[in-house]
Amino acid sequence: MSIRLGPNQYGKAENRVVRIVRDTARHQIRDLNVSTALRGRFDDAHISGDQKDVLPTDTQKNTVFAYAKKIGVASIEEFALALADRYLEACPAAEGARVEVDEYAWDRIQVDGTGHDHSFVRSGGGVRTTIVNVDGRGADRVAHVVSGIKDLVVLKSTGSEFKGFLKDEYTTLQETTDRILSTSLVARWRYEGTGVDWDKSYESIRALLLQRFAEIHSLALQQTLHGMGTSVLEQHPDVAEIKFSAPNKHHFLSDLSPFGLDNPGEVFFAADRPYGLIEASVVRDEAGDAGNAWHAIPGFC
Amino acid sequence: MSIRLGPNQYGKAENRVVRIVRDTARHQIRDLNVSTALRGRFDDAHISGDQKDVLPTDTQKNTVFAYAKKIGVASIEEFALALADRYLEACPAAEGARVEVDEYAWDRIQVDGTGHDHSFVRSGGGVRTTIVNVDGRGADRVAHVVSGIKDLVVLKSTGSEFKGFLKDEYTTLQETTDRILSTSLVARWRYEGTGVDWDKSYESIRALLLQRFAEIHSLALQQTLHGMGTSVLEQHPDVAEIKFSAPNKHHFLSDLSPFGLDNPGEVFFAADRPYGLIEASVVRDEAGDAGNAWHAIPGFC
Amino acid sequence: MSIRLGPNQYGKAENRVVRIVRDTARHQIRDLNVSTALRGRFDDAHISGDQKDVLPTDTQKNTVFAYAKKIGVASIEEFALALADRYLEACPAAEGARVEVDEYAWDRIQVDGTGHDHSFVRSGGGVRTTIVNVDGRGADRVAHVVSGIKDLVVLKSTGSEFKGFLKDEYTTLQETTDRILSTSLVARWRYEGTGVDWDKSYESIRALLLQRFAEIHSLALQQTLHGMGTSVLEQHPDVAEIKFSAPNKHHFLSDLSPFGLDNPGEVFFAADRPYGLIEASVVRDEAGDAGNAWHAIPGFC
Amino acid sequence: MSIRLGPNQYGKAENRVVRIVRDTARHQIRDLNVSTALRGRFDDAHISGDQKDVLPTDTQKNTVFAYAKKIGVASIEEFALALADRYLEACPAAEGARVEVDEYAWDRIQVDGTGHDHSFVRSGGGVRTTIVNVDGRGADRVAHVVSGIKDLVVLKSTGSEFKGFLKDEYTTLQETTDRILSTSLVARWRYEGTGVDWDKSYESIRALLLQRFAEIHSLALQQTLHGMGTSVLEQHPDVAEIKFSAPNKHHFLSDLSPFGLDNPGEVFFAADRPYGLIEASVVRDEAGDAGNAWHAIPGFC
Repeated sequence: MSIRLGPNQYGKAENRVVRIVRDTARHQIRDLNVSTALRGRFDDAHISGDQKDVLPTDTQKNTVFAYAKKIGVASIEEFALALADRYLEACPAAEGARVEVDEYAWDRIQVDGTGHDHSFVRSGGGVRTTIVNVDGRGADRVAHVVSGIKDLVVLKSTGSEFKGFLKDEYTTLQETTDRILSTSLVARWRYEGTGVDWDKSYESIRALLLQRFAEIHSLALQQTLHGMGTSVLEQHPDVAEIKFSAPNKHHFLSDLSPFGLDNPGEVFFAADRPYGLIEASVVRDEAGDAGNAWHAIPGFC
Repeated sequence: MSIRLGPNQYGKAENRVVRIVRDTARHQIRDLNVSTALRGRFDDAHISGDQKDVLPTDTQKNTVFAYAKKIGVASIEEFALALADRYLEACPAAEGARVEVDEYAWDRIQVDGTGHDHSFVRSGGGVRTTIVNVDGRGADRVAHVVSGIKDLVVLKSTGSEFKGFLKDEYTTLQETTDRILSTSLVARWRYEGTGVDWDKSYESIRALLLQRFAEIHSLALQQTLHGMGTSVLEQHPDVAEIKFSAPNKHHFLSDLSPFGLDNPGEVFFAADRPYGLIEASVVRDEAGDAGNAWHAIPGFC
Repeated sequence: MSIRLGPNQYGKAENRVVRIVRDTARHQIRDLNVSTALRGRFDDAHISGDQKDVLPTDTQKNTVFAYAKKIGVASIEEFALALADRYLEACPAAEGARVEVDEYAWDRIQVDGTGHDHSFVRSGGGVRTTIVNVDGRGADRVAHVVSGIKDLVVLKSTGSEFKGFLKDEYTTLQETTDRILSTSLVARWRYEGTGVDWDKSYESIRALLLQRFAEIHSLALQQTLHGMGTSVLEQHPDVAEIKFSAPNKHHFLSDLSPFGLDNPGEVFFAADRPYGLIEASVVRDEAGDAGNAWHAIPGFC
Repeated sequence: MSIRLGPNQYGKAENRVVRIVRDTARHQIRDLNVSTALRGRFDDAHISGDQKDVLPTDTQKNTVFAYAKKIGVASIEEFALALADRYLEACPAAEGARVEVDEYAWDRIQVDGTGHDHSFVRSGGGVRTTIVNVDGRGADRVAHVVSGIKDLVVLKSTGSEFKGFLKDEYTTLQETTDRILSTSLVARWRYEGTGVDWDKSYESIRALLLQRFAEIHSLALQQTLHGMGTSVLEQHPDVAEIKFSAPNKHHFLSDLSPFGLDNPGEVFFAADRPYGLIEASVVRDEAGDAGNAWHAIPGFC
């Protein structure tokens, strides 16, 4: 019998760094949650406990904060790529680095119709995210960027059907041509290459996802997601594929008949658990190899 | 030794009811979390287990959903008042009813520059809330409305000091004339009377709280809250008092000196715990008796 | 119109301090979450922003950690009382201090049938808690201790009825003589005086609450709580009153009849929301004045 | 340009089913959270919205509850395998089924030194879990079982070092030969085959993981995990590999020197974020092909 070390990675998760740009009186804010991880030849750390190859997670954390000052946060994608390269430079045993960044959005507070210079209110509408994987250095360097949005809660109060499904002896669900469709969307898209205007691309894809969710007459959440993803790939040639994880947040029509009331799609009970969970993806045939792009991303098939 | 039943109440918490208004193709949505409670002469239920006086929490829940259809949700305050009166009508042993409603805000999804008719995205910027207490019926009826906002996360990147404080042998904090000030605000205000344009009043107070947070040069979170509350009372004669619960969400300046970098208010670590917790209130001298207005509201002194 | 400062308090919430006693090789651990608050004459801090009377929350935090070393944690009650007195000593403007402590329990890891000297596993079965309020100093000092347990999740798979309740036009609930009864209990009891063997008293009350929950044939959650509380007061003369907050965690019998299966109390759906919420108390007639004992304790009537 | 459907799956997540065995007066309870998912040829559902191949998530839910009655829950592994096979039988388009089950542990409440027949208290010490993947039917059927434990919070108050690590210009961490080591462990192990005494194996592995955590003098969390995993593989020939995800829950020694107090490993601040995150695995060389065993398991490399 032979037992050996299997795959592994380590890093510092959830570094909450807030970067204020205050070159002028009109401040800007980038509010980030940064998680880092290194993978590679760390056998000694695991087997004998010798840490000589290990760049501590504390150092990874320090680097996050130092880089927030040193290079700033032009976009979360550029920030993540720079960190990944830095870790690979600092840690010879590492073969790959993974940096995940969430960004929380803030709006300027309105005072007399104008956005205030240095006062902000946290906005909703989803959390922007990116996951960068870099393997190797110099000529061998391969970088992948998977950006996305999560916690984007959307709802259609009509324009959603679910019918014609497979039935068996455990089926009790009634068919419907008018229901509420709602989800807390996670969407992640893989870019080909890194020559992207990251902020502009994010805003454009976010708006397109919302627009298509609104426009598509839904026959099922799967078909809605497929339509949304297809539009993203059609309009964004630099996106190779897009993956969705979408809980079907059930809104059950309340049965008011015991009280002599009809309920034509007006009063719903928003349930917590269980929930449908739809995971789907749309890919471009000619897309380049995904390599480690989707490494350790939860919940995706 | 004599042991007796003390104060008590019971009800159904967190009824998640979603009301769609679909009289025209342009739907409206009111997305609520309703908690109900009755108090009064329920000694038998506690002592002998006889439930003859008890309107079950399941019935309270049914009433929430039936009323969402029957009378609709003109505002959360009117909805809560109607429910409270209904419970007191249905349950003779009850002496008082408490109904708490949270409302989650939704924006219309933008399609070609126009808000969509029936597709929505959950917005941030705080959760609207009301707590209604009604005691008695008919001529003896006394109703109190405490409305508010919670989860309103705000931040100032400058314009905040903290200095001149009391020092003792355990003090290590440095004085500062420039720090980040951030909180996740809970504000609750008590109305005098119930003849209020509830939606309009809420929007106006919410905007005023944000504006004053932005405008006030902060010497301490206490002084900021006091200024915010004072403005609300000055501009809203129907508000008798306002209470705040405000965690001081510490943003610590990152020490980058070990890396040869200065940090003039640019890079911060957003900490989780511990956090300062400031609770404060502003009251109008001539305000009427609060009675049960603040009954069972958590976290307020 | 005259507007003035109302009630207020401030402090440092959720100081996560872990105290290891390592006088011998057999370590002991006390794992605490400490929240502190001061109330009193802090008008200047609110109105003019002058902080001269304010003992900063940062100093309150430092005191928590320093006292964990200096006096140790004989029990959370003694620790909280000492902190409250210290704050009142250090801060002349304070009229009262409130210290809340949660304690997380750890079991020794079993190795070859023996508890390990310095390795622990977090246990379940509820979180011990205390809330101490001290008003004044010296001869005027009044101290109140409210201890308790929370997150104590219990369930009876039978021995629970609910019938004979009040019915109205919105009642659909069926009566039952056999259901699951489950709650995540919060119990808080007020001690008369402070000459108590705190750890022993806590263990004894916790065991008694569990025993009575098991023994009582339940006609309603109210009646179960009343029985539990009555036993505590009967057997613990130093307890003046006890309050419960108990969500009725509904377990709905699954309707398996569409599948030709009966379900005699065997398969249940454990629902999340809404839930019944029962709040109740049992008090001793001759109990001393509660004073500020229940100051700012959430959710209790 | 050609755009196509990529990988996808769908199901019903978090079915909270509680199964009471009440054949005798001494009840047993199995408290489960069941998530199901199907993958296969569902192109029509995504592309044209035709649901003819789709076994609704609602039906999947019904099957969970019906099977809890019909076959019972001998172990979560057997229950999950039976469900997966059932879904593949009912849904011809499905090529694979994934069923994940978490089980919450309950202890009998002690009354007069004996465990009560039908009253229980939720215990801590981790949540048992299994993830079953079945591909194909009949002769082509391949089944994989990955069982595990999560939320197992452990702590060593000494016997943990961290030194000799790689240093760079961003390193400030001091070396230590005595620190607190604590984690909230997730461990998942893949079985070879399905002829296992599941409950017995789980209890044995759980105890072994705890024992080894206690016994191993830690040079790093990686080395502790490696030792724990190696022991599991050595003593459990039916386990092919084991994977760990372990947040390093930092306990920072409180600096009490400003107050004239030393702190020889006695008072710690338990931090929330950021945290180290160590992911590691130990594998048996001769292990069979993992196939889809680790399909869609979050957080593992």
